[in-house]
Amino acid sequence: MYEEGIVPAEQVSSSKPENLPLVVGIDLGGTQIRAAVLRGARLLSRVGLLTGENPTPERVIPRMIHAVEQAIENAGTTLGQIAGIGIGAPGPLNSHTGIVFSPPNLPGWIDVPLRDILNEHFKLPIFVENDANAAALAEYMFGAGQGSREVVYMTISTGIGGGIITDGRIVEGIVGTAGELGHMTIDLHGPRCNCGNIGCLESISSGTAIARRANEIVAMGKGDELLAFALTQQEDGSANTPEDSQQVARHNIVHINARVVAEAAAAGIPVARQIIAAAAEGLGVGLVNIIHIFNPELIILGGGVSQMGDLLLDPARRIIEKRAMVVPRQAARLVLAQLGTDAGLVGAGALIYYNK
Amino acid sequence: MYEEGIVPAEQVSSSKPENLPLVVGIDLGGTQIRAAVLRGARLLSRVGLLTGENPTPERVIPRMIHAVEQAIENAGTTLGQIAGIGIGAPGPLNSHTGIVFSPPNLPGWIDVPLRDILNEHFKLPIFVENDANAAALAEYMFGAGQGSREVVYMTISTGIGGGIITDGRIVEGIVGTAGELGHMTIDLHGPRCNCGNIGCLESISSGTAIARRANEIVAMGKGDELLAFALTQQEDGSANTPEDSQQVARHNIVHINARVVAEAAAAGIPVARQIIAAAAEGLGVGLVNIIHIFNPELIILGGGVSQMGDLLLDPARRIIEKRAMVVPRQAARLVLAQLGTDAGLVGAGALIYYNK
Repeated sequence: MYEEGIVPAEQVSSSKPENLPLVVGIDLGGTQIRAAVLRGARLLSRVGLLTGENPTPERVIPRMIHAVEQAIENAGTTLGQIAGIGIGAPGPLNSHTGIVFSPPNLPGWIDVPLRDILNEHFKLPIFVENDANAAALAEYMFGAGQGSREVVYMTISTGIGGGIITDGRIVEGIVGTAGELGHMTIDLHGPRCNCGNIGCLESISSGTAIARRANEIVAMGKGDELLAFALTQQEDGSANTPEDSQQVARHNIVHINARVVAEAAAAGIPVARQIIAAAAEGLGVGLVNIIHIFNPELIILGGGVSQMGDLLLDPARRIIEKRAMVVPRQAARLVLAQLGTDAGLVGAGALIYYNK
Repeated sequence: MYEEGIVPAEQVSSSKPENLPLVVGIDLGGTQIRAAVLRGARLLSRVGLLTGENPTPERVIPRMIHAVEQAIENAGTTLGQIAGIGIGAPGPLNSHTGIVFSPPNLPGWIDVPLRDILNEHFKLPIFVENDANAAALAEYMFGAGQGSREVVYMTISTGIGGGIITDGRIVEGIVGTAGELGHMTIDLHGPRCNCGNIGCLESISSGTAIARRANEIVAMGKGDELLAFALTQQEDGSANTPEDSQQVARHNIVHINARVVAEAAAAGIPVARQIIAAAAEGLGVGLVNIIHIFNPELIILGGGVSQMGDLLLDPARRIIEKRAMVVPRQAARLVLAQLGTDAGLVGAGALIYYNK
């Protein structure tokens, strides 16, 4: 049935082998359920299932259970050897109670007591945390944040999420929804965000925001060079002349994504550089806010958009240099995440170590 | 010499008498040094000395010592009965080491090891905290925040400061400068802030920002009604006709302060209402950010500007209602501070209870 989605178990090496108990991490996403047996940051097995169409709790939770069982089997271990199961899930959710409220990318989930359901099934300690906090925990315990106590993690991909560690503890808030760094307004009169708020960092500096601005500019006929570049990146080559290109763009046949804008900017195309510069300005301002609010020793940037590296980070650093107060600015280092797409799985498993 | 500044010892009643040890709190400000012997929130004595002109550490620290000795004497107790001394001081400072960096309103203070100097003198545990964090701690332990674990305190007066309590602990940051809520940018293209940053909450919603906007409007000749109102609030009555008023304002002879703008708004003067509405909009946006970042159960507003109450809070509440995410919004209550101008002293003393 959904077995076709299973990714073969892998042996993944880790730079930090430790005498930690075995745990299971689950990374519940809108398109994929991933589960792994872990020892610290070391993955002993990894299973991926598609979340599937119509991902109601009634369909998804049995798949989660199946993924866990498969991961345990693939790792050559047994449930009895597992110290607990941690789940990173899309927010909003209550990390104290393990209840998932109504995540935009898990339609049909309304106040689902995920912790209790899995605890009932597995009879093991279960911890549920929002995915950004889980990734933050992974980087803090096993990645770029090792050895630091005051860490802010920000993930920039289609959206912008965050996880805050202060004095070695995740900032959860009263119902566990803290850390929504992407939804701080940095532009009172800025664009409307998907969340309903105005001028959120996410509406200015996310991959979605970069793509939106690129497509707007192309639709206005001001981004022909970018469009031509985008078309060379497409394999079908369906449009060949500038006239074709404009037709194509104006009818939204080509959708330019953030990756293409980044590549175009790296190739020196002016309009692409301007789009990235605007995103970087927003990011810089958001980071100044974080420096003033949290006085972190370390800010870790993860997510696909952060992978464009200095193209995005250099202008953001210049904003920080210019705008942030001297004392907390000098205390804060800005680094890239180390765990890549495994951060969610590692962090989910790390919830067991963190909560014990 | 500076004895004329001494305020007589007072017996101050408290709603919460407890079996707490006696402590000394010092509230070090740009214009006044206040010291008190406290038991919890109950002041057994209170002493106020002027900080004086040219407030170098060499002049101010002996006055602090004198104020402490005087407060102890006035309370009819001895140094031997004091469990410790807490100091709330203007930031930036390092609350972990007790070193005061270079506060804008204490010129001449550069990296002063205040904790160690006072410890050397009194041979008692000494704790130094920035004044906003001390006030936050006071409200958390003895004021509006009693019984809550996730509290954000914001003080709005000439500037905007903050103190964050998460899971019952002050968010300090790596060098103790966390909580600068007034210096988060909410308007990317907004006014320049005193701190050098752009569009900070403080530059939009502080008492200084309200006064600045009022005086700008009057200077442009668009605030005659507000000016006339302001002049009726002045006792010297130096200007009587509208022509005089405009002359006076254009030459900055009248400086309209935030209190007058608030009173004019309460009296229904349209331009004053608009000025307060703009400040309230900024405040609302800042509070939305706080709700998204911290998911607090309680936001406590203190400081003189917050005392205008619903005139400021009602429009801010409407912004929150419209813009904040449902789950954390429903979890957050917005209340006024309870300890008034004593919060700094009570919080300074409370550092002893907090750190033990």
